[in-house]
Amino acid sequence: MVSIFKKEAAVMIDRRDMLALGTLGALALGTSSLADAASVTPDQVSLPFHGRQLHVLDLTHRLTRAFAFTPGRLSMEAVEGSGTKAGMALNRISIVEHTGTHLDAPRHFAPDGASVGDIAISQLIVPLVIIDIRKKAKADRDARVEPEDVAAWERKHGRIPAGSCVAMVSGWDPLGVVANYGSLSPDERRKSPGFDAAVMDILMKRNVIGIGVDTMSIDAGEAMPAFPVHQAWLRSGRWALEGLTNLDRAPVAGGLLFAGVAPLENATGMPARVIALY
Amino acid sequence: MVSIFKKEAAVMIDRRDMLALGTLGALALGTSSLADAASVTPDQVSLPFHGRQLHVLDLTHRLTRAFAFTPGRLSMEAVEGSGTKAGMALNRISIVEHTGTHLDAPRHFAPDGASVGDIAISQLIVPLVIIDIRKKAKADRDARVEPEDVAAWERKHGRIPAGSCVAMVSGWDPLGVVANYGSLSPDERRKSPGFDAAVMDILMKRNVIGIGVDTMSIDAGEAMPAFPVHQAWLRSGRWALEGLTNLDRAPVAGGLLFAGVAPLENATGMPARVIALY
Repeated sequence: MVSIFKKEAAVMIDRRDMLALGTLGALALGTSSLADAASVTPDQVSLPFHGRQLHVLDLTHRLTRAFAFTPGRLSMEAVEGSGTKAGMALNRISIVEHTGTHLDAPRHFAPDGASVGDIAISQLIVPLVIIDIRKKAKADRDARVEPEDVAAWERKHGRIPAGSCVAMVSGWDPLGVVANYGSLSPDERRKSPGFDAAVMDILMKRNVIGIGVDTMSIDAGEAMPAFPVHQAWLRSGRWALEGLTNLDRAPVAGGLLFAGVAPLENATGMPARVIALY
Repeated sequence: MVSIFKKEAAVMIDRRDMLALGTLGALALGTSSLADAASVTPDQVSLPFHGRQLHVLDLTHRLTRAFAFTPGRLSMEAVEGSGTKAGMALNRISIVEHTGTHLDAPRHFAPDGASVGDIAISQLIVPLVIIDIRKKAKADRDARVEPEDVAAWERKHGRIPAGSCVAMVSGWDPLGVVANYGSLSPDERRKSPGFDAAVMDILMKRNVIGIGVDTMSIDAGEAMPAFPVHQAWLRSGRWALEGLTNLDRAPVAGGLLFAGVAPLENATGMPARVIALY
C-alpha cells in the first residue's frame, strides 16, 4: 500500500481556507436565500433554525498526512470499482483508529467496554463545558486541568450539567509540535497538557459522559507511560475526544457538542467530525 | 490482515438496542437533570437547547461486517501502541471509503473535484428535504425520484431551500437485500430505487448542495453501469449520502441534516455519522 498524500502539512492547512471556499463554498456563497441569511466562514456557519440563528463551529483538524506521527499510520490506495470505466474513483483507506481529531471509546482501555459502534446518538450530542487553562499552559508545558479549575468554572457558571462533555483548551498545537520536534529538548518532547487524574472522580460525580482535549492525549505528557486518566475514565464506560481545535472560539458554557463518528463495531476509536452548536 | 468481526449482521442489529442502553446508556438514563429533561432512545434523543427541545435523530446504520458486500472491504487488526503494557488496545482499520452509511465527495467522479477533506462545515449542516417514494417503490424495485415528486413536495412545502440536502426515502433495506440475495431473480438483483437523472437539473437550479438515499446508490439499480446521476451530480461539485436510515422518522420539511465525516484529505468518500436536527 502506497501513501498518496502528496502535500506537506503547512501547505494543506493554508489550502484549507481556499478549498473550503472553492467549488462547494461557491454554492453556499451564491445568490441563494440561504447564503443571504447565513454567515459563512470555512470553520463556522450560522443558519436560521426555529426562529433564531444556529451557530455551528468545526472543532475538527483536517485529517492530513501530518497526523501520521508514525510511519504507515495513514495511507490510501486506489481500488477498482464497478464504475471505474464510467470514471469512478475510490480508495481503500488504512488508518490507525486514533489518528487526527478522534474519539476514544471505552474499549480503548476496557476489553469488554463499549466500542465506537455501541455508542448511541444520545451519548454523542451533549452539553459542552470548556475549561480554559491557556494561561498556565503557557508557563508549563505539562499543565493539568486540576480540581481548582473545575471549581472555578462552577463558581462562574453553576454546576457542570450531567451528561456533558468537559473539554480542556490549553492552546496546544499538535501539528506545530511535530513540525518543531527536532528543536525540542528531550524534556520538552515528553510534555503536553492534559487532565489531572484527581479530576476524574469529580467529573464522574457530576455524571459527565465525555472529556475532550486540544492535545493528542487526555493524559498529560509526563503521565503517559501509566495513562492514569485513560485508565480511570475509559474503564468507567465513558468516552474522550483528542485532537480538538477551535475550542478557544466556542462558548465556555451553554453550547452543545456533537461527536460525529461512524459507528464502527468493535472499534476502540475513530476519526471524527466534531462540532459545537450554540 | 485478518477480520476480527465475529458476529453475524442480524445479531449485531439486535445487539444495538441493548448496547446503546448499556454502559453509556445507563449514564444518560441515570438520575441526572439531563436525563430528567431528556427523552432517550437508541436512535433518537431530545434535549433542552435555547428554551426549546432539540430533537436529534440518527440517520446512520451501524457499520458492521454486513456492509462488506465484497470480501475484504472492511477489516481490522490489533496493533501495539505506546500503552499496550498499560492495557491499551487499538486497531488498524482497512476500509473502502464507500462502505456503510457514507458520503460521496465530488472527487468520486471528478478527478479535480473536492475531496472529503475539502468540504467545509458550512456545506455539511444544511436544510433537510425528504421526498417519500415508498408507495411507488413497493410496486417497482427500480422506482425513481422523478420531476413530479419534486413538484409535489414544492406544492405542499414551498420552494426547496437553496443549500439544502434532498433525501429520498424509498423504504429500501440494503442489509435485507444482501441477506435475501440468494432468493432474488437476476432481474431483481439489478434493481434498487434511486434518483432519476431528469431531476438533477431541477435540483441544481434550486442550488441544492447534497442528495441522499436509503439505498446504497443515488443511481437507480438499472442505471448503474453508466452512473448518470453520479456523473451529473458529483461532477457539478456537489456531494451525496448513501445508505441512510430512519428517514421515514425525520420531518419531510423544516429540519436540518448534519453529515459528520472526518475531513480526510484526498478521500473520494468516507463513512459518516449523519443526523437530523429538528
